[in-house]
Amino acid sequence: MHSNKLRFGVLGVGRIGKIHIGNLVNRIPDAEVVALSDVAGAELEAVAARFSIARTFTDYRRLLDLPEVDAVVIASPTNLHYQMIVEAAARGKQIFCEKPIDLSLEKVHAANQEVGRRGVRMMVGFNRRFDPNFLKVREIVAEGKVGRPQVLRITSRDPGPPPEAYIRASGGIFLDMTIHDFDMARYLMGSEVAEVYTRAAVMVDAVFEKAGDWDTAVITLTFENGAFGSIDNSRQAVYGYDQRVEVFGSEGMATVANNAPDSHILSDRAGIHTALPLHFFLERYAESYWREMQAFVDAVHQQAPVPVSGEDGFQAAVIALAAAKSARENRPVKVSEISAGVTSECPVS
Amino acid sequence: MHSNKLRFGVLGVGRIGKIHIGNLVNRIPDAEVVALSDVAGAELEAVAARFSIARTFTDYRRLLDLPEVDAVVIASPTNLHYQMIVEAAARGKQIFCEKPIDLSLEKVHAANQEVGRRGVRMMVGFNRRFDPNFLKVREIVAEGKVGRPQVLRITSRDPGPPPEAYIRASGGIFLDMTIHDFDMARYLMGSEVAEVYTRAAVMVDAVFEKAGDWDTAVITLTFENGAFGSIDNSRQAVYGYDQRVEVFGSEGMATVANNAPDSHILSDRAGIHTALPLHFFLERYAESYWREMQAFVDAVHQQAPVPVSGEDGFQAAVIALAAAKSARENRPVKVSEISAGVTSECPVS
Amino acid sequence: MHSNKLRFGVLGVGRIGKIHIGNLVNRIPDAEVVALSDVAGAELEAVAARFSIARTFTDYRRLLDLPEVDAVVIASPTNLHYQMIVEAAARGKQIFCEKPIDLSLEKVHAANQEVGRRGVRMMVGFNRRFDPNFLKVREIVAEGKVGRPQVLRITSRDPGPPPEAYIRASGGIFLDMTIHDFDMARYLMGSEVAEVYTRAAVMVDAVFEKAGDWDTAVITLTFENGAFGSIDNSRQAVYGYDQRVEVFGSEGMATVANNAPDSHILSDRAGIHTALPLHFFLERYAESYWREMQAFVDAVHQQAPVPVSGEDGFQAAVIALAAAKSARENRPVKVSEISAGVTSECPVS
Amino acid sequence: MHSNKLRFGVLGVGRIGKIHIGNLVNRIPDAEVVALSDVAGAELEAVAARFSIARTFTDYRRLLDLPEVDAVVIASPTNLHYQMIVEAAARGKQIFCEKPIDLSLEKVHAANQEVGRRGVRMMVGFNRRFDPNFLKVREIVAEGKVGRPQVLRITSRDPGPPPEAYIRASGGIFLDMTIHDFDMARYLMGSEVAEVYTRAAVMVDAVFEKAGDWDTAVITLTFENGAFGSIDNSRQAVYGYDQRVEVFGSEGMATVANNAPDSHILSDRAGIHTALPLHFFLERYAESYWREMQAFVDAVHQQAPVPVSGEDGFQAAVIALAAAKSARENRPVKVSEISAGVTSECPVS
Repeated sequence: MHSNKLRFGVLGVGRIGKIHIGNLVNRIPDAEVVALSDVAGAELEAVAARFSIARTFTDYRRLLDLPEVDAVVIASPTNLHYQMIVEAAARGKQIFCEKPIDLSLEKVHAANQEVGRRGVRMMVGFNRRFDPNFLKVREIVAEGKVGRPQVLRITSRDPGPPPEAYIRASGGIFLDMTIHDFDMARYLMGSEVAEVYTRAAVMVDAVFEKAGDWDTAVITLTFENGAFGSIDNSRQAVYGYDQRVEVFGSEGMATVANNAPDSHILSDRAGIHTALPLHFFLERYAESYWREMQAFVDAVHQQAPVPVSGEDGFQAAVIALAAAKSARENRPVKVSEISAGVTSECPVS
Repeated sequence: MHSNKLRFGVLGVGRIGKIHIGNLVNRIPDAEVVALSDVAGAELEAVAARFSIARTFTDYRRLLDLPEVDAVVIASPTNLHYQMIVEAAARGKQIFCEKPIDLSLEKVHAANQEVGRRGVRMMVGFNRRFDPNFLKVREIVAEGKVGRPQVLRITSRDPGPPPEAYIRASGGIFLDMTIHDFDMARYLMGSEVAEVYTRAAVMVDAVFEKAGDWDTAVITLTFENGAFGSIDNSRQAVYGYDQRVEVFGSEGMATVANNAPDSHILSDRAGIHTALPLHFFLERYAESYWREMQAFVDAVHQQAPVPVSGEDGFQAAVIALAAAKSARENRPVKVSEISAGVTSECPVS
Repeated sequence: MHSNKLRFGVLGVGRIGKIHIGNLVNRIPDAEVVALSDVAGAELEAVAARFSIARTFTDYRRLLDLPEVDAVVIASPTNLHYQMIVEAAARGKQIFCEKPIDLSLEKVHAANQEVGRRGVRMMVGFNRRFDPNFLKVREIVAEGKVGRPQVLRITSRDPGPPPEAYIRASGGIFLDMTIHDFDMARYLMGSEVAEVYTRAAVMVDAVFEKAGDWDTAVITLTFENGAFGSIDNSRQAVYGYDQRVEVFGSEGMATVANNAPDSHILSDRAGIHTALPLHFFLERYAESYWREMQAFVDAVHQQAPVPVSGEDGFQAAVIALAAAKSARENRPVKVSEISAGVTSECPVS
Repeated sequence: MHSNKLRFGVLGVGRIGKIHIGNLVNRIPDAEVVALSDVAGAELEAVAARFSIARTFTDYRRLLDLPEVDAVVIASPTNLHYQMIVEAAARGKQIFCEKPIDLSLEKVHAANQEVGRRGVRMMVGFNRRFDPNFLKVREIVAEGKVGRPQVLRITSRDPGPPPEAYIRASGGIFLDMTIHDFDMARYLMGSEVAEVYTRAAVMVDAVFEKAGDWDTAVITLTFENGAFGSIDNSRQAVYGYDQRVEVFGSEGMATVANNAPDSHILSDRAGIHTALPLHFFLERYAESYWREMQAFVDAVHQQAPVPVSGEDGFQAAVIALAAAKSARENRPVKVSEISAGVTSECPVS
């Protein structure tokens, strides 16, 4: 039933691109990858060979010109996202774009507008929404099992800092790292963020200071429904990737523990010992990368709204910019301070 | 060896007073209770009979006049603490005073001054420092096992709100409830708090609004050593008393779970179920009430500094007032804003 | 209300004797200790001084002769239990006797008969029934929450072997150590044991072999109601005292974890680490020693049956002897093989 | 690099067959499936279409005749295994065979002999050895972290009984269900089983009695190295599939908990609740099915011994037959009683 398969072109075959290609090829029966593009030709060919993909392009525009490509995965560096979105939308391709859409709020807004005008779908890669643990917490909250949500707690820590070049191009901790937590906050609480207060510092590595960035942050959120949230981030947890959430409400609390590769307990003279967490996001969120892509394929096939829209990408970016401003000015910043200058009527994809 | 026992008079035989009396009588061999005072005569006699204590007074001054009383426990309503401290100190009694010392920072300061001038010891009842879990976290941090502390997290939630009359006399959530967490923050991090930012609201019960108080709060602390802290409070966790801390640092993390009465796990068709927490502070902190009193007795016997001083009581109160101001004004408040007007040279008892 | 207190004489002031004295003096308001006896005079006087007990005797018979003694705690070496029980019963004293009643089944039976004839109560010190964890499992089973019990699992391991002299006088692993597990099995399952199969070996220390004893055992129980049980014992778990039970039934499973002094979790580069268990039975079962004595005092005061009877002591000993026989002969042994020769009509105290 | 891929024919496209096909097609890059056989033609075609497999046969012999088939997966009913092994070996195919090899020990032995004579490899599907939890316990034991193993505990319970027809063809609980635990016992302890004692009964469903089978068992193992083991089985744990092991030794203990689909904890007024286990073996052991097949492919490619041999299949079957005999006769049965009549010199594949 080849004709029913959604035919993908993947733009960018780096770390995340390969994840998506692997899932589309091996784990999503109603999709296939028909073309790849990347400026790095040698890697492009190696990936194409490994996954038996026929067509490769160093110029992504030639991929976009293929009529048999139904949908694209944009997994290129962030500074290329906007242009690729606009051009893919112009050619009527369905779009899955990695986060963040862009570091400039204006461009995020413009990309969303363009996608809306062209009538294609765009899903943003906030994969954590599809993690079995966080999905379960969302489900518990949505079912009302914790009553009215009152306090959200998120702990999100990386095992170690990225390379300096990555840091410099990242847009800073809030647009690069915390943006996932901001999206998670909106997703779990079912309410928009109204105000942000951030304390941030360099505690891990002076490289962040050189880049005008921070590596450690504690953030207070006030939601439009009156609830509060608290997020803490670090670029380095020596014990490994640490990803936990807790929603406390009028009728109870839902929490999820961090993930480990196995459940072993070793008891010896020195103590009781268990496994360190799964190393980093590729391992911890392997399942969620697969599930988000399946959800995208399902949405396109069923002509249903995508579960994570461009508007979701916009909102998370707004909060991230508010968080950065709060950290710089050491005062609570209303999210409307940031978004007001851009626009309020955003398209829904 | 009667002569070696520290002879106590206890001022106030309410809920907390009885806890201390029970521990002094039954679990601290080198102490004894020789006299009690309380304005509520019937309860006073009942308690005296139950613990076989010979002398009772409805006027605490007559108790203070007894030459055989070496030390007093002040477990009366907060508004009486200051006067009792001053008078006990004047008579050379060693003093154990429940928290808070007073709702007025000036009076706390004055009480500390008076205690210092009279050359007696005063210990403040921040009993949680003596909880086996929190003691262990402090020990781990002090041993350097988490490296340089970077982020402190405290969750502290009551099982349900106190009576309205209690709320009105309490000094508000920060002086009544969070003050324990502020002391815990200083204790665990080994650094003073420099700045506080608080979001507070009424989410649990309108009675708090009527009293000009809050029932839910999320607080960000900045320590003098640069570390951050985050505290969340609620006056009502329907699943029970919730007391957890986490210290994250450059070399690791120490956390403690909430306490339960037993470790049973029931697995049935509906799920896997474990016990609700110990009901409230009397149950959860039974051990710490005993250990703090033993520590006070030991300090007096050994003529050593008490482990929790009047200065500790002062500092926690300053943070509490800064937190309240921050909540009212929705801005970060430096602790020095509060303490500057009072004094900076505080006596050490 | 002095006249209402149950007045105790304690026979034996060793490790367990002191536990009971401490609980009776400090934690059981409606009891008091009026006399102690022990052949070791110096220790006797030290204990009496520590707990302010007026009367001491190196000859227990003089204690038994005191008319003001209502009840006795027999905490002497096992080989003295029988004689003390008989003499105490003859004087109409209520009796709390440590386990085992005797190493000879005939003497256990005779002691029970004597207690029955004299019309006094005798409770046997199977303290673990009063441990909060095991109590909870029993409660869950009794409430039918696991349905019909089908399989019982008990893991019971000591932190290290006792001294050789203790081993030689102990009656062997089954009468000394596993006897607690046999009692727990009857208590949790609410059914008598019909048959025992035991594999036992010396894996820990050759001293057990010299004493004709074993240090490691795996035991299969068949209950009269058709359920099965499995017990494993070791005289040495290097990580500490290990005490767990699990009851599996037609509607679910109840388990309890081993106990630790605190709930701390330390996460560092090497792993996730938690606390070793409470050291040994004095620490782990501190609460249950207190609760069992309170239960004895309550039973006497209320003229109710004691919760652990001489018959319970008899049955556990029968199973222990069957287990030893099974280990020696490597075959399943019916409990009736052991008890048949003694008697079937046992008094209920 | 088609020529390097191991080309599989799969015999049997039932539940387990489909698992293996899915893993070979999607998750094992250096293997491919070129042909399928099954007597159920409709299902055969459906599976072939789903996985895009070109060739299908209702007669497995025609599949075996294909020269391009390098290796076969035998996932047919047990009573066909022997014949398929013999014929596949005769054609020089590498063999992966589901457990048990056969219900008759003689045929197991003969199959192993034949495989040895033909010089092909045969791996037996004891997939649990590849479960991340059990792998970790084996690794801990092999590294000596628990010292000398002394006591093994395995709890292995199904969520519910299979259909009656399955039971009647299964060879009974020990050859069908416990055989996995017997293999796990040998694997974890690194020692052969010398003796078995079993108590078995029908507690779950009378259908087992009708089939001359049992549904509940407690088994004691004695290993050749002197260690003991205890296994408990039930055909119905209402809370779900329960798979735990524990190895206790002279220097510590390694345990693994049961697996759940997520780590959520819901705290509400009624209690603290966590997720039920993963439903059954297909979900719980999804990872291990993949890993075992990868291990088989690797062994063939590297011309290395397979990690689970025909001899392993033989030994587990011997223990299962000893367990059944012990249950029938209620006495310990030496494994040599069973194997003696067959043979002692077994080929190593």
